[in-house]
Amino acid sequence: MTFTAPKNTIEFLLNHSVDIDEVLAAPAFADTNRDLISDILSGAADFAENVWAPTNWSGDQNPATLDGDDVKSSPGFKGAYDAFVDAAWLSLATAPEIGGMGLPQVVKAGTDEMFYAANMALGLCPMLTSSAAKAIHAHANDDVKAKYLPKMVNGEWTGAMCLTEPQAGSDLGPVRTKAIDNGDGTYAISGQKIYITWGDHDIADNIIHLVLARLPDAPEGSKGISLFLCPKVFVDDAGNLGERNSFKPIGLEHKLGIHGSPTCVMEFNKATGWLVGEPNRGLSCMFTMMNEARLFVGVQGVAIGERAYQAALIYANERVQGRAINAEADAPIIAHPDVRRNLIDMKARLAGARAICMATAAAGDLAVHAEDEDVRKASHTRETLLTPIAKSYGSDTGVDVSSIGVQIHGGMGFVEETGAAQHYRDSRIAPIYEGTNGIQAMDLVGRKLRRDGGEGMKALIDDLEAILILANKTNETLDMNACIHALKNGIETVKTATDIMLNADDANALAGATPYLNLVADVISGAFLIKAVANGALAGDALTENMASLARYHALSVMPRADAHLNFLRGGAKAVFDFPMDQLADL
Amino acid sequence: MTFTAPKNTIEFLLNHSVDIDEVLAAPAFADTNRDLISDILSGAADFAENVWAPTNWSGDQNPATLDGDDVKSSPGFKGAYDAFVDAAWLSLATAPEIGGMGLPQVVKAGTDEMFYAANMALGLCPMLTSSAAKAIHAHANDDVKAKYLPKMVNGEWTGAMCLTEPQAGSDLGPVRTKAIDNGDGTYAISGQKIYITWGDHDIADNIIHLVLARLPDAPEGSKGISLFLCPKVFVDDAGNLGERNSFKPIGLEHKLGIHGSPTCVMEFNKATGWLVGEPNRGLSCMFTMMNEARLFVGVQGVAIGERAYQAALIYANERVQGRAINAEADAPIIAHPDVRRNLIDMKARLAGARAICMATAAAGDLAVHAEDEDVRKASHTRETLLTPIAKSYGSDTGVDVSSIGVQIHGGMGFVEETGAAQHYRDSRIAPIYEGTNGIQAMDLVGRKLRRDGGEGMKALIDDLEAILILANKTNETLDMNACIHALKNGIETVKTATDIMLNADDANALAGATPYLNLVADVISGAFLIKAVANGALAGDALTENMASLARYHALSVMPRADAHLNFLRGGAKAVFDFPMDQLADL
Repeated sequence: MTFTAPKNTIEFLLNHSVDIDEVLAAPAFADTNRDLISDILSGAADFAENVWAPTNWSGDQNPATLDGDDVKSSPGFKGAYDAFVDAAWLSLATAPEIGGMGLPQVVKAGTDEMFYAANMALGLCPMLTSSAAKAIHAHANDDVKAKYLPKMVNGEWTGAMCLTEPQAGSDLGPVRTKAIDNGDGTYAISGQKIYITWGDHDIADNIIHLVLARLPDAPEGSKGISLFLCPKVFVDDAGNLGERNSFKPIGLEHKLGIHGSPTCVMEFNKATGWLVGEPNRGLSCMFTMMNEARLFVGVQGVAIGERAYQAALIYANERVQGRAINAEADAPIIAHPDVRRNLIDMKARLAGARAICMATAAAGDLAVHAEDEDVRKASHTRETLLTPIAKSYGSDTGVDVSSIGVQIHGGMGFVEETGAAQHYRDSRIAPIYEGTNGIQAMDLVGRKLRRDGGEGMKALIDDLEAILILANKTNETLDMNACIHALKNGIETVKTATDIMLNADDANALAGATPYLNLVADVISGAFLIKAVANGALAGDALTENMASLARYHALSVMPRADAHLNFLRGGAKAVFDFPMDQLADL
Repeated sequence: MTFTAPKNTIEFLLNHSVDIDEVLAAPAFADTNRDLISDILSGAADFAENVWAPTNWSGDQNPATLDGDDVKSSPGFKGAYDAFVDAAWLSLATAPEIGGMGLPQVVKAGTDEMFYAANMALGLCPMLTSSAAKAIHAHANDDVKAKYLPKMVNGEWTGAMCLTEPQAGSDLGPVRTKAIDNGDGTYAISGQKIYITWGDHDIADNIIHLVLARLPDAPEGSKGISLFLCPKVFVDDAGNLGERNSFKPIGLEHKLGIHGSPTCVMEFNKATGWLVGEPNRGLSCMFTMMNEARLFVGVQGVAIGERAYQAALIYANERVQGRAINAEADAPIIAHPDVRRNLIDMKARLAGARAICMATAAAGDLAVHAEDEDVRKASHTRETLLTPIAKSYGSDTGVDVSSIGVQIHGGMGFVEETGAAQHYRDSRIAPIYEGTNGIQAMDLVGRKLRRDGGEGMKALIDDLEAILILANKTNETLDMNACIHALKNGIETVKTATDIMLNADDANALAGATPYLNLVADVISGAFLIKAVANGALAGDALTENMASLARYHALSVMPRADAHLNFLRGGAKAVFDFPMDQLADL
């Protein structure tokens, strides 16, 4: 179960698919350059391969346990986490003013992919810490920030998000947890929260919980929810740890995957909390970090897919079975055309989904740091447009690819000891959490596409046209015919589909939301690979021909799927609403 | 976790998609009619829902265990199995001359789907017993038949297949287990077999193993393998059970799914066996029942998909979350267009895959029982052509649909207690065993398509054309426009793809094998639903409009995917072989 981080692929996309020069031109990144990024990627690869990857299987086989009021983490996790904190990986892209290294998040998309691939269950802990720190940074008052942020940024303490309740999941409006003003600047929080990732553990000394709760006079629904900070252990003004707060884990979920990540039922019994942000504005405070969190779930999908791919590749090179066509002796199964096709398919799909994630991350960097306000604005539009696609397509790709990974292992894939099954199980959470992929599709079509009359999507289509021009130029030196053909067709497909979605009524648009998201993703994933090839050729990158092989395969196997989705959009919503509900049970 | 067998859907397909009148016209089925079949399906539904379905979760949570030399089955399994034997479900389609009821196997495809959906892990035991009995019936001598067959046919004893060894899986050529002639009509079998489904258990008094082994003077490879019968417990001439034979389970696999099915490592230590069939012809004896076994694995995929679908449907009707478009109050999530689309998608894909399985089963019935020799021959060709498609497409559909099932459950789907995850885990074996789906695709393209120059496929295309004519007629009374459009296009796609595959060289044909299989399946699954609608309309079946809704959805969402596969076939093999092997690791 060795893992080798795909550093070259990540770096190639970073250099040639993403507008990295534009990102690095921002004043905030004056000290960052490609060489530094390359070194960081190498360091992350080394860390992921040697420190985290060996703990992955152990976490799966030895889930966290609840011992009284305390969660005991999986064996090896504390050491792996401490090493992560020591190496300062956590704060790579955190703002320097709160102690981070301030690198672009597109670099973090690369390093974090490696960490998730190495140990996704453990990787969730710093992910949530980052998100919580970001929310505190954006919304908490200076006292709270001073007390909690530095130790969260350096990872000494971790963060947790207490949002979900049994009746409040995808829709947080019905949150019932109560917050009563204690009259001393604190609130008493009472209620039960479920699905709290890393809600308790023993790998850090304190856990800073952000809790959604309702003040007594709050309006009903989502506009009456406030955000509170509840530390597991109280911190005095000198920063010393004191008594434990009055909330605790009362159960751990028995999950399909990510066993090493403790998913807690948390009980708040008049726990002491501090208000973060304005009263009743809790949901919008949480949404501050939603783009980032969703992007990184897409990255997780790619990461698990990559790990599954590598396991399958190793197995296919080792397992001798049968005689391949035109062969004279039995050979490893990679010699069988169908196995080989499956491996290339996995790799091409991962590369495409990865390119979408990186484009999203880079847009996020420019949205915050570009000097030009118009660029910031356009990049923000791009980031928010791509985020649901990155989350959904990345996570679905992870599931699909890890399923192929099991398949390549044959019977061995179904036996847990092989490890292939773990990826299949682990990957399945990514399409669900941080907003199900159905919600991503609704977000794409409702908020991102239709609300601005398709402006953001039109800008993206313009970029696809520019990539087509670039590819035509590159075709003089590199065979890009298959890519050009697929991209030309894909652009028309995206245009037609976008028109359909812009002109549909709300119900019809929502019925087509997921097919539309996948249609756009099938095309832009290929386009972003083609862009990488074209730019790589211009730059004389020695690995360009390798990326070209991937892009050509993608153009033949993935991009054409967009047409099937278009076919559905042409008549599909009608098919959904015409289907009688009472016929769902049997005929 | 209740289960309601989809009796109406199965019966509708049986009556209108399959040529059931032609099947029932065979002399062997003189006593069978549609009413009897309907009663049998109702009885099976009742049994599946009330006797087997309640044991499914318990089997998952309490896998079989190895206790010394004996496997202890999951709680409740013995009672469920005994009831199955008492109700004589096992021998529904077994030949009357060996004690079976002699019904068409297309009926068994319907009943067994219900049983697999109710408890797939348990269903594997009678499945293997049937297959073993069939092999014994076809190849063993009269003494062996008389001693073992009756009690296997009635299910008093079960059967197991000992094929795989660590180095011999998809390719059985390297089997090393040895058989030494004892000089008394018996052989001493020694070696280790792995992945032996229901290789040991305590739900029946005896287990009849069919074991592949090599005689001392046998040629190397697959032409030197013989088949032996090894009873777990010896049987004297009066039929009494005696001593235990010298083989035993020495380990149980820790698997991703079907936990209730004990997957044994079996050690044969000079076990006593009887030769079945000719020496060195063991593999061809095993292949006697390969078509049947593969078809029923396809049925398993549909079955698990159906169970996952039903769980999702129940959850979507119960779980209130968020306000759907145009709604005035929060409602169950089925009101959200995307959830609704997912449910219809699951149902349409299951119906299409089921129709392929039933067409395969009916062809098998006609291949054996049709009066006319030409019909028998043509039906045999059809059965062998459809079998790899049924196996692969049915099992892949099971995985895809059960993954959507988890998704519809949201976070609850990832928690094992909900049960949705079990289907996702269980379904994953079906694309692997009885020949991986990659092997099915090679079989389709190599043996079934190219060996006869495409004759069998041309006959299938002729049938698709006939369905198109039928659909055009039906269009006068029922809106079939979407179906006709998709079918017309689909037929052209199949024709073009078939020409490509017939004209490709071997390596290229194999590289396109899986996309070609899926292309054909996407089209014929829809065509078989359209046929059902058209015939249902002609017959005035009251459920026709319901099936029409499914067929229309399928025509918009599934059939068009064939074009994406065609796109791959047009340039795909080149993309596979042009892809440099050394670039698979990283760029």
